[in-house]
Parts: sequence; C-alpha cells; structure tokens
Amino acid sequence: MLGNFSYCNPTKLYFGDDSLNYLNTELPKYGKNVVLIYGGGSIKKNGIYNEVMKLLDENDKNVAEISNVMPNPTVNKLYEGIEIARNHHADLLLAVGGGSVCDYAKAVSVSVNCMEDPWEKYYLRFEEPDCETLPVGCVLTMVGTGSEMNAGAVITNSETKQKIGHVFADEKIMPKFAILNPKYTLTLPHYQMVAGIYDIFNHICEQYFSGEDDNTSDYISEALMRSLLHSSRVANNDPQNYEARSNIMWTATWALNTLISRGKSTDWMVHMIGQSVGAYTNATHGMTLAAVSLPYYRHILPYGLQKFKRFAVNVWDVNPIGKTEEQVAQEGLNAMENWMRELGLVMNLSQLGATEDMLEGIANGTIIMPGGYKVLEHDEIIKILKESLI
Amino acid sequence: MLGNFSYCNPTKLYFGDDSLNYLNTELPKYGKNVVLIYGGGSIKKNGIYNEVMKLLDENDKNVAEISNVMPNPTVNKLYEGIEIARNHHADLLLAVGGGSVCDYAKAVSVSVNCMEDPWEKYYLRFEEPDCETLPVGCVLTMVGTGSEMNAGAVITNSETKQKIGHVFADEKIMPKFAILNPKYTLTLPHYQMVAGIYDIFNHICEQYFSGEDDNTSDYISEALMRSLLHSSRVANNDPQNYEARSNIMWTATWALNTLISRGKSTDWMVHMIGQSVGAYTNATHGMTLAAVSLPYYRHILPYGLQKFKRFAVNVWDVNPIGKTEEQVAQEGLNAMENWMRELGLVMNLSQLGATEDMLEGIANGTIIMPGGYKVLEHDEIIKILKESLI
Repeated sequence: MLGNFSYCNPTKLYFGDDSLNYLNTELPKYGKNVVLIYGGGSIKKNGIYNEVMKLLDENDKNVAEISNVMPNPTVNKLYEGIEIARNHHADLLLAVGGGSVCDYAKAVSVSVNCMEDPWEKYYLRFEEPDCETLPVGCVLTMVGTGSEMNAGAVITNSETKQKIGHVFADEKIMPKFAILNPKYTLTLPHYQMVAGIYDIFNHICEQYFSGEDDNTSDYISEALMRSLLHSSRVANNDPQNYEARSNIMWTATWALNTLISRGKSTDWMVHMIGQSVGAYTNATHGMTLAAVSLPYYRHILPYGLQKFKRFAVNVWDVNPIGKTEEQVAQEGLNAMENWMRELGLVMNLSQLGATEDMLEGIANGTIIMPGGYKVLEHDEIIKILKESLI
Repeated sequence: MLGNFSYCNPTKLYFGDDSLNYLNTELPKYGKNVVLIYGGGSIKKNGIYNEVMKLLDENDKNVAEISNVMPNPTVNKLYEGIEIARNHHADLLLAVGGGSVCDYAKAVSVSVNCMEDPWEKYYLRFEEPDCETLPVGCVLTMVGTGSEMNAGAVITNSETKQKIGHVFADEKIMPKFAILNPKYTLTLPHYQMVAGIYDIFNHICEQYFSGEDDNTSDYISEALMRSLLHSSRVANNDPQNYEARSNIMWTATWALNTLISRGKSTDWMVHMIGQSVGAYTNATHGMTLAAVSLPYYRHILPYGLQKFKRFAVNVWDVNPIGKTEEQVAQEGLNAMENWMRELGLVMNLSQLGATEDMLEGIANGTIIMPGGYKVLEHDEIIKILKESLI
C-alpha cells in the first residue's frame, strides 16, 4: 500500500548538450555575489571552469571561490566555506562538480546563517535549519549521487571517522536549478564512471529492498534498474556513447530525488556500512557500496525472499520455471554479481585499503537503519564486513 | 537518445487518507479571497464540500463559488468563471473535483487578467499568457487526467464543436498544491473508474509509441503500465481496495506530469481523435479514447513495429519465441484488447452516440500531430473512425 506522504521537487533541470547556456536564464534571478564551488581542478583542465566564469562575467557577477572540495567533504572544509560565503555576502552558491561538490554547497547553504555548530546541529542531532538558507545552483560534471535534485548532504568528520548524510526535510534546501550536460561526463576516468553507475544502482536497491506491499514505486525502480543495466553495458564498451551516458545521467537523478521512496519503507544499510568504510579509507563512495553489497544482500535474502525473487525475474530476466524461490532469488544476485564484475567494480574492501583491524571500528561507526528486511546486529555487520574483505 | 529538454514540476502533492488536513498548511500562504470551483454537486453528497468549506472558514477565507463545471468545460462556462473570479478579486482558485474541474481552474487562472479573448488567444492561437495568473490549488476527487500536476487545460467550444487542449509552457501555471486522497475515489461509479483508468493508460501510450531511440523514459512508461494493469484488475474486482486505488491515483499523476515525455517525441493522435469525438458527442473522455484506440494502433503498427513488439513483451509478457515480429506485436494488442474488455470499457463509438454522418465532421475536427509512427491523412482518420463505429 502507498502510505501517506508529501512530494515536492521544485528544482529546475536543464538537460542536454547545450544546457550550460541556461545559466543566462538562471543567474539574473539572483543577486550580484556568487560563490563558485568546485573540486580538485579537473574543471580547469576540461574548460568548464572558463565557460562558467565567462557566463558569470557576462551576467555581471562578483565571484568568490571555494576550490579543492574533496570527494568526501570534511567538517573543516565546511567551516572554511562558511567563512568565505559569509565574507562574500553570498547571494548564490554555484556548485560545479559531482555529488560531493553539490552536497557541500547545500551544507554551506544551511550553515552560513546558522548560529550553532553545523556538524553538531545537522549531523549529530539531525535538526532542520531554523535560519535563512542560501540558494544553490549546480552544474553537474559527474553522475551518481542524485544530489542535483534532492535535499541531501553528506559530510565527513575525519577526526571522529564519521561520514554522515542528512536529507533535509524542506524542499527549499534542494538546488534551485541544475545544469545536466551528459557531454561533461564523457571524459571521466572509467573507475569514476562505473563507481557512479554502481552508486545509482544501489540507490535504487536501497529503496526497493524494503516492504512487502504492492507499490507503484517498486515498478518504477525496476524500470530504472533495467534502463541502467542496459545503458551501463553500452557505456562500459563505448564510454563515448552519448545516448548511453545521457540515459545514465537522467536515471541517476530519478534514482534519488525521493520519487521511488514515496509511500514505502526503505533500507539504506549498504550506504550506512559503505559510508563507515569511507570514513576509514577515504575510498570512492560507489566502490565502498560495491564492495559490501553482495555479502549484505546474500545475508538478508532469506528475510526478503519474495522481493529478491521479484528482483531476479523483473530486473534480471531469470526464468523461474522449475526452480525453488530460493534458487530464483540467488540467481538474481548471481546475475547482479556477473554484471558488477563485467563493469570492473571493486568487489572487496581490501582493494580499498581496509584491513581486518579496522572492521570493529567500521562496524561501530555504522548507523543501523530499521527499514530493511532484517535489522542488523553488530555481529552481523562484522560478518558482512569479513565476507567483504577479500 | 535523450534529446535536450528542461524539467520543472514544482506542484506540492499531499497524498493519503489524511491529506485534506494539509489545506491548513497551504491556505495561509494565500490572500483572503478564494474561489471554490466544483462540478455537478457530487461533493455535496459525499461530504467533501462541507469538509472543504469548514477548513476555508477556519482559515478565515472569503469564499465565492463556481459550481456546475461540466465534464467537458465550455468556453461560455469559462467566460462566466472569469467574471466571478474578477468580481471576487480572487487570491486563490481552489478546484475540488476531477480533471475537468482542475483544467477549468487553470483556464480561469490564465484568463482573469487577460485583455484578449482567452479562447482565441490560448486555444486557437496557442499563445502563452502575458498577464498575471492566479494560483490554483486542487483537491482531487477523480483520477485520470493528471491535471493536478501539469500545466494543461482542455476547453470545449460547443458551437464550433472544437475540444482543444493547451499545455502551457510555464510551470507557474501548474497547481501550487494538490491534495490526493485515494478514499475520495472509492465512491466513483464503475463507469467513471474504468474510464479514468483507460485515460491514464492512454496517456502513457501516447508518450511511448513514438521514436526509435533508447530512452529511460520508455522504461518508466512500461513500469507505469505494468503497475496500472495490475492495480486496475484488483480494483475492477474489488473497487473498495484502497491499495489498488492509491496506486492508480499515483500512477495517474506520473503518467502525465511531463516526466515520461522528457527527451523524446510523442504521439497524441488517440487524444486528438478522441477529443474531436468528445466535441460531437459530449461523451466521457476516457471512453472516447477507448473506442478509437485499437483501430488506431492496429493501423499504425506496421510503421512502429519494433516498439509494438517491445510493448507486447515488456508490458504484456508475450513470449516472442518462435513467432514473427508482426505476430508478437499483434499479440500485444490482442492482450490489451482482452484487458479493455475485462474492465468493461466502451469499445465502439456507436455506444457513445456517434453516428456515421458525424464521422466527416469528427475527422475534420481532428488536429493532426506529427510525432507518431505515421502522420495520418484525412482518409486514414475516416478509416479508423469507421472501424471504431461498431
């Protein structure tokens, strides 16, 4: 059954190979002072930085910069950005990058006018902002997180080894606009491309593997997974295929903009374990998910047998005739494993730099979510981590 | 390939059996003068009118009414509503009803401050509003049109026998909020329920049967169709099944809120023919679509063979092994026909009051759309209408 819910995603999306020009439509809506936020400088190499700066200049903006936002943005980096945005009297935060940069911009947005410590308020106490927030715009250059059309922001405390995501309740925290140009993703290294693809796939799994009711959302999830499997195979063989890359980009947005979780429960345990791994290893987010997924799903399969069977048939075209429900369900996960190996994903934690002595800490840092088919005990997380190690 | 596009649907949706209470969240955002818009009075019988009036009163609103909005709202009714909204200095138009009432409210919204004749400006010249528009809110009591989350408004000129829809370009024409309570749909007569279900199904078909590219949108369309087929069968046997009715309601919204047409071409010829039938017969919209669909799709099948084959396999689970492509495609449409008969849809135009002598006029009143698998000639429309007659 569809439970009660509300839905509102007002982000304006401009999609396509000419989409950057729509900055000319959006920039005039905001004041003069723009803070440009980006990562390690790849946008300077591929020319996007110059194109954006030209458009900012043509729109007569006064620009400050926050650069070197890292893949797992830290609390200390957040404090630094808050100062820059305050001193610049920012009217708009313009994020140019992937999910980390977009997440970071949203974290700055809710913190600039916040009188308390944002880490404690938003990430330890999970409170909502009670101050004015700044508008955020995104120019997306990597694909996966869906951050361009949601109100989530993950921040890492590297001292306490905590990587925590907060999905804010108010749609005003969502980006006001996002520019999605699939061309920008064509130059990504293969490792980043497939990590992003797996991040998308897992976002859908996290929302799909929960509940036993009949729900339109689960049908949409299956559609997004099928589209992604198809396009990921095309892109893996031919990374320059614009059609495949554009479908992957669009699927990523819908995999995590709240649509497919409406009216149903969700899981999110792969992300919880993966994020704790990330806090210990600083590994690429999508790869931390890939490394722990199969041990986790094989562990919970008996508790959600009907859904894993449905997954096998509807997503992986497993023929159920003459097989037990368990066999069908297992075949689905085996098909998923084959696809993951085909893409060249990292399939264990050792490759990400995790070692046996970290597992207790990773397990302790894992937030337990109650919505999946099995509420994990500490020992079960340890078991899953051990199975993920090599 | 996903072509270039923009996407923005800012309508706030409140979904569920307690959703009417969210009027208390929304009403304070607008001024004192509300125009309540509704249809033939069923909301007075089932108590929704009293509940809404109570909430309007509690929120201290000054209410004027436009009642008796007909299933195919006419230009003359539009003129009447414009006067009422003007005289009341309306701050908010609150539509309580189905698609016709929501469409009508949007037509009033773009016309109240318009200095020209709205029929000529919006429906004959297809221009966009260049005046201030009024905010619209919806309380949905019937399901099908998707009008609660789009910028479309169909109006009928009964003198010239033209029923024309205009999908406005600006998202500000979309309802600001919509209350979706599946319970309200439980009391609908069977005829209205299945007409709405077929309207939803055909909205998806209109966007699906076009183009030969690889597109995430088509996967989502297949998911919505599969969910709808499942829920429609449950609801047909057990109209009081809240789970099925809630999934049908949610599917209707996503079938026509622009998502599944992003980046692709669309058809819309069944609607064009059906609307012309509606202008001549005043028949229920969904039934006009049902009556002409199969002759139309069988006519265009050879021009879109691959998509009709995909439709058969992915939506209707037709087993393609050992069959020609044509056989697979035909089996899909046969399965669709069986489902339509199972629901008890009207399968020919005679039952809707159309007669042979009307066909030339209906064909002349049919707007030819260029996006489908075959751009129809006048003679082809006549052929399809004749095949639809009995």
